[in-house]
Amino acid sequence: MKNQKIRFGVIGVGRIGKIHTENLVNRITETEVVAVSDVISTEVAKVAKQFSIPNTFSDYNQILQHPDIDAIAICSPTPTHYVIILKAAAAGKDIFCEKPIDLSIEKIIKINEAVEKHGIKMMVGFNRRFDPNFFKVYEMVKAGKVGQPHVLRITSRDPAPPPEEYIRASGGLFLDMTIHDFDMARYLMNSEVIEVYARANVLVDPVFEKAGDWDTAIVMLTFENGAMGAIDNSRQAVYGYDQRVEVFGSEGMVTVKNDTPDSHIFLDKKGTHSALPLNFFMQRYTESYLNEMQAFVESIKSDTPPPATGKDGLAAVMIGLAAMKSVKENRAVRVGDSGIG
Amino acid sequence: MKNQKIRFGVIGVGRIGKIHTENLVNRITETEVVAVSDVISTEVAKVAKQFSIPNTFSDYNQILQHPDIDAIAICSPTPTHYVIILKAAAAGKDIFCEKPIDLSIEKIIKINEAVEKHGIKMMVGFNRRFDPNFFKVYEMVKAGKVGQPHVLRITSRDPAPPPEEYIRASGGLFLDMTIHDFDMARYLMNSEVIEVYARANVLVDPVFEKAGDWDTAIVMLTFENGAMGAIDNSRQAVYGYDQRVEVFGSEGMVTVKNDTPDSHIFLDKKGTHSALPLNFFMQRYTESYLNEMQAFVESIKSDTPPPATGKDGLAAVMIGLAAMKSVKENRAVRVGDSGIG
Amino acid sequence: MKNQKIRFGVIGVGRIGKIHTENLVNRITETEVVAVSDVISTEVAKVAKQFSIPNTFSDYNQILQHPDIDAIAICSPTPTHYVIILKAAAAGKDIFCEKPIDLSIEKIIKINEAVEKHGIKMMVGFNRRFDPNFFKVYEMVKAGKVGQPHVLRITSRDPAPPPEEYIRASGGLFLDMTIHDFDMARYLMNSEVIEVYARANVLVDPVFEKAGDWDTAIVMLTFENGAMGAIDNSRQAVYGYDQRVEVFGSEGMVTVKNDTPDSHIFLDKKGTHSALPLNFFMQRYTESYLNEMQAFVESIKSDTPPPATGKDGLAAVMIGLAAMKSVKENRAVRVGDSGIG
Amino acid sequence: MKNQKIRFGVIGVGRIGKIHTENLVNRITETEVVAVSDVISTEVAKVAKQFSIPNTFSDYNQILQHPDIDAIAICSPTPTHYVIILKAAAAGKDIFCEKPIDLSIEKIIKINEAVEKHGIKMMVGFNRRFDPNFFKVYEMVKAGKVGQPHVLRITSRDPAPPPEEYIRASGGLFLDMTIHDFDMARYLMNSEVIEVYARANVLVDPVFEKAGDWDTAIVMLTFENGAMGAIDNSRQAVYGYDQRVEVFGSEGMVTVKNDTPDSHIFLDKKGTHSALPLNFFMQRYTESYLNEMQAFVESIKSDTPPPATGKDGLAAVMIGLAAMKSVKENRAVRVGDSGIG
Repeated sequence: MKNQKIRFGVIGVGRIGKIHTENLVNRITETEVVAVSDVISTEVAKVAKQFSIPNTFSDYNQILQHPDIDAIAICSPTPTHYVIILKAAAAGKDIFCEKPIDLSIEKIIKINEAVEKHGIKMMVGFNRRFDPNFFKVYEMVKAGKVGQPHVLRITSRDPAPPPEEYIRASGGLFLDMTIHDFDMARYLMNSEVIEVYARANVLVDPVFEKAGDWDTAIVMLTFENGAMGAIDNSRQAVYGYDQRVEVFGSEGMVTVKNDTPDSHIFLDKKGTHSALPLNFFMQRYTESYLNEMQAFVESIKSDTPPPATGKDGLAAVMIGLAAMKSVKENRAVRVGDSGIG
Repeated sequence: MKNQKIRFGVIGVGRIGKIHTENLVNRITETEVVAVSDVISTEVAKVAKQFSIPNTFSDYNQILQHPDIDAIAICSPTPTHYVIILKAAAAGKDIFCEKPIDLSIEKIIKINEAVEKHGIKMMVGFNRRFDPNFFKVYEMVKAGKVGQPHVLRITSRDPAPPPEEYIRASGGLFLDMTIHDFDMARYLMNSEVIEVYARANVLVDPVFEKAGDWDTAIVMLTFENGAMGAIDNSRQAVYGYDQRVEVFGSEGMVTVKNDTPDSHIFLDKKGTHSALPLNFFMQRYTESYLNEMQAFVESIKSDTPPPATGKDGLAAVMIGLAAMKSVKENRAVRVGDSGIG
Repeated sequence: MKNQKIRFGVIGVGRIGKIHTENLVNRITETEVVAVSDVISTEVAKVAKQFSIPNTFSDYNQILQHPDIDAIAICSPTPTHYVIILKAAAAGKDIFCEKPIDLSIEKIIKINEAVEKHGIKMMVGFNRRFDPNFFKVYEMVKAGKVGQPHVLRITSRDPAPPPEEYIRASGGLFLDMTIHDFDMARYLMNSEVIEVYARANVLVDPVFEKAGDWDTAIVMLTFENGAMGAIDNSRQAVYGYDQRVEVFGSEGMVTVKNDTPDSHIFLDKKGTHSALPLNFFMQRYTESYLNEMQAFVESIKSDTPPPATGKDGLAAVMIGLAAMKSVKENRAVRVGDSGIG
Repeated sequence: MKNQKIRFGVIGVGRIGKIHTENLVNRITETEVVAVSDVISTEVAKVAKQFSIPNTFSDYNQILQHPDIDAIAICSPTPTHYVIILKAAAAGKDIFCEKPIDLSIEKIIKINEAVEKHGIKMMVGFNRRFDPNFFKVYEMVKAGKVGQPHVLRITSRDPAPPPEEYIRASGGLFLDMTIHDFDMARYLMNSEVIEVYARANVLVDPVFEKAGDWDTAIVMLTFENGAMGAIDNSRQAVYGYDQRVEVFGSEGMVTVKNDTPDSHIFLDKKGTHSALPLNFFMQRYTESYLNEMQAFVESIKSDTPPPATGKDGLAAVMIGLAAMKSVKENRAVRVGDSGIG
C-alpha cells in the first residue's frame, strides 16, 4: 500500500464531487481516481473527460464492485448515504463521506457498527476542521495557550439562501448549516456538548417558513467541562460568507478573521475601505477540502484513525436534533434526549 | 439658566465620584462643583482641595439642602440611591445617578414616579452609550446602515475579579456587570428584550460560589422585533478589559474593536505583536464618562429628556432579574415575569 | 518649587496657544497660568475669560517682566521667537518654545548660547515625541527590540494645504512640515542625520509654486550609524492626517497606524468600511500636546534637561536647510554644509 | 490552436522550474508538458516521474528542436538566457523567461529584436504583477481610484540572505532583488522611471561586502509624470518575507498588507499576537506563479501581447544599473545614462 497510489472511486460529481475529484487527481500525489459515477450521465462524462478518468458509471454499485478501487468518496445526496456506506463497508472499501452522514441517529449508529465490523476506515467531511484558520485555533487551544476554555463563540453566516428545493431536502438549518458549527464546537473545545438551548426565526426570507424551516438562529451550548458557547447563524449575510470562531479561556483568547481575496486597504474622502470576505464556501474552503482529503489519505496509508469519524458525525447530528427540539419547545434540551428511534 | 453655570453637588467621592468631579470642574465649561460629600471625611477633603471646591460635607443632606446647588451627581453605594433620589427630587434638584438605580423593581418604580411628579431630570449613568465606538454602532444602526437588525453579539469581560466584599454587595454578575450589556442591547437594537435564557458558572474563582454568585455567563436575548442576541461575560480576561459589540442585519454588519493604549505593531522572529486592550474601565471609558456628563448638562440646559432615563434604568434591572431566575430554574424567562415585589 | 505651582505666562493665544493654555490650566495639576499676551487684544481677553486668567497683556514684555511668572510658553509666530527667547532667558524664565525655534542656524546658535549662559531650561515643541504611538516606537527601539536599526520610514501627509499667507511665511515645506519628521528621525533612530537627498515637486496646488515652495516631497536620510531612511510628505491627503513611522532593524520591525475617531468596522454589499484617520493635528495630537507640556513641567520640577532641547531644534533646522539645498541642486547634501551665515 | 493543448518544454527544473512544471501539468487545463531538460540528469528524471512527462533531456537544444513543442519556459540560470532565447526565437517557439532576461542592456536589446523579427511571444517572469494583492493595487490605480499618483512606496525585504555562491552570481542586490520592485514601480505608477538616487550599505552580513554587493538599500525614484517613489530593501527581515506597496495620489491611497498563513489573533497576559508573514517567496507567490503562467497561455491563445514583455525586462535592468551607478558615485543618475555598451 505504501508504495502505490490509492485508487479512488467518486460517487456523485456535483459541486462538491468535482472539488474532491480535482484534488484527488491533481493535488494529492498519493492518489488516483479510477472511476466516477453519477445518475446524470452527461455530468459524469464531462468530469471524466476533464480529469482523464478511465471509467464512468451511472450506477454507484459498479464502483463498489470494482476490484481496482481501494476507497470511495461519497458526494451524493444525504438520503443515499446509508445504503452506499453499508454496501461499501461490506465490500471493504475505505469511505470518505460528505456530511451529514444521515439525518437519523438510528441509521448513523448502524453505519458506525458496520464500519467497525468490516474494519474499514470512514471519515466524515467536516472540512472546516482543516481550514488553516480554524485549525490554528484548535492547535492553540489544544496546546493550552488559552488555558482552560471557558467560552466559545461561533459566527456562521451564509452569503445567500439556497434554492427552495435545497431547503426542503436539507434537514433544516441545524442539520444542514449549523451542523458544521456543532462539529467545530466539539472539536475546538475538546469537550462534549451536553445541553442545548436554541432560538430561531424567519427574518430573511418567507420561503423558509413555507418549508417549515428557519433562517436565523442562536444556539447556546453547555459543555461537559462546564464551559459555555453561543453560535449565531444566518442564511444571508449580504457582505459575504462570514465564518469566525473565538475561544476564551483562563489564560487568554484566540480568534480568527474571515479570509478575503486580497489585503488591500483603500482610503479616500469617504472612508477606509477593504475587501469583503470571500463570498462562497468553495473559495473560502478551497484549502480545507484539499487538506481534509489529504488527511483521509494519510489515515489510510498510516493505518491510523481518520481525524473526523462516524462518532463525530453522530454527535453533530444529535446536537442538531436537540437544537430543533429546543426551538420547538422553547426549553433547554439535553443532547441525546432528542427523540432517537 | 442658559447663561450661567450649572452648580453641582457630588455625593460620594470614590473612584467614580472623582471622575465625575474632575469632568464637571475641568472639562465641562458650563458647570461648576459647589460642594462634595462623603462619609469618609479625609477623602472629601482631598478631593475638595485638588479641585478647589468650596464646600465639603460628610452628610449628603447638606448638599440636598444647599440653595446654590442646581443638580447632583450620586456616586454613593447602590443601597443609598433610593433615599437620596427621593429627597433630591423633592428638593427640586436634577439628578445624575450611577447605575444601577436600585436592585428592586418596586423601588425603581417609586423613584421614577417621584422624578416625574417633581418635574426634575434624572439620568442614569449608562456611560457606555457615550463611548465613541459604541455610539458609532448606535448611530449606524439607527441610520439604517445594517438594515433590519437580526442578531446582536456582545462580549463583555472584566480584566480581574473585584474584591470579595464588592462581590457580596454587588447584586451579582447580572445586576452589577451584565446590566451595562442589557442596557447596550436595548440601546443598540432599539427594541425591548422580551425573553431571556441564561447559563452561568463559576470557572474563574471559587470566591464567587462562596458569595452565591457566578463569574462566567452567556445570556441569550429575544427582542420584541424578532431579533436575537447573545451576551458573554467573564469576570477575568487575563489580557485586559474586553468590550465589543456587533450588530448584524439585513443590509450589513457593524462591529467595533477594543481600544488600545497605542497602535504599534511589532514583528520579530516569534510573531506579530501589538498592544493589549486598555486594562481598566477608567481608561477605556474616560471619554464616555465625559460625554455622558456633557449630555446630562445639555439636557438640563435645553430642557430635553436625558439620553438614559429612569425607564432605561428599570428595564436593565428587569432583564437582570430575569437572567438570574433563568439560571436558577434553567429555563427561558419572560422579562417582567421575574418576581417583582 | 516642589510644593507650589509653577506659574506660566503664555505668549500668543492662537490655535496652539489656546491648546497649551487649556492644558496648563485644566489638565496639569502642578501649573497655573498667571498671564496671557497677544497682539490681538480681543483674542487675549476671550482666552483669559474662558480660563479665568487674572492678567492679560498686548505686549509680551509685560509677561517677561512679571515677577510672579516662572516660565513662559512661546506660541507667537516664528520670526518673534528670537527676541523673545533672548529676553526671557535674560529675565531668568524657563522657556517652552513652539517649533521651529527660528529659520536661521546662526540665530538658533545664539539662542542656545543664551539659554546656557542664563542657566534656564528651554524645551522645543516637538510634540510628536510625546504621541503615545510614536513614543512606543521610540521606547521599543531604545529597548533594543528591533536590534540594530537599519531602515526608517516616515509618512507624513497633511489633510489639506494651509492658506497662501501661511505658506509664504512658513519657511517652506521642509522647515514647516518635514521639520517634525526630521526631529522624529533623529529621535527614533538615536543617531544623527549626516546626509540628505531630497526631491520635491508641486503636484497638489499651483499656489505652492507661486510661493516658491513645494507640496510633495521625498527625503532620503543617511544616518551616522550607517542606517538609511526615507520620509515622504504631501500637503494634501484627501483622506485625512496621515502620520506613520516604521523602524526596521536586525531583530525586528515596529510600525504604527493612524489614530481614528472610533474602531468601527462596517460591512455591506459594497465592501468593508472603517473610519478615516483623525483629520486634523489638533485631534491627532491632543494627547501629545498634554504630554509634552507635562514633560516640560517635570523637567523644571526635577531640574533635569527637557526631552527636546535647543540642540534638537537646531539639528532639525539644519537637516531642513540641507534638504532645500538638495532639491535645488539635485544632489546629496551633507548636513551642516547648507549655507550657515 | 484554440482547441488543443499548448505543448510546453521546460528548460531547467530547479526550484522555480518545478513550480512552473507543476502549474503547467496540474493547474492549467490548456497546457501539457511534453519535455523537461536540465544539466542535472537525476533532477530531470525525478521531475519527469513526478509529473508523468514523456521526454527528458540533458541538453536544452533537444527541446528547441522538438517538433511537438509550441512554447518553452526558461528556468535556467541568467547567463544561459541569451543564447536559449535567440535559438528558441529562431525555432519559432513562444518563450516564457524568468527574470532577469540578462544583465546586459545590449544583449537584452538584441533579444528583443530577435523576438520581434521572428514574431514569437516572449513574456518575462515578473510574477509579482500577478499577485492578488499587488494586482488589486494596479487595478485600483488604473481605474483612477487614487486620482493622479503622487507617491509610491515599496518595502521589499527577504527573510534571509541567499548563499554566498548565489550572491556572487546574482548580479547584485539591484539586479537580483530590487529588479522586481523596479518592475512593480513602472507597473503600478504607469509611468517611466527617469531618474534614480540610491544608497546602499552592508548592515546584515559581511559576506555581501566580500562579494562586492550590499544587503540594505533605499532607492528613490523620479517618474516621468512628476511623481516620486522610494523603495527600501533588506536581505534579512527576521520576521519573514516582507512585501508591501503603497500608492498615494490626489484622490486617495491604496496599500496592501503581507500575506500570513492564517488570520488568528491571540491575546494573553503579554500582548496581542498574530501570525508572521509567509516566510518564503514560494509560499507568498504561489498564486502569482500560477496566474502569470495562465496569463502567458492566454496571450498565446488569444494572440495578444503578453502582460510583461521584453521591453519591461529591459526597463527594469536599466533602472537597476542606474541604481548601482548612483550608489557608487553618490549622485542622482538618469535612467539610460548608466553605461550601455
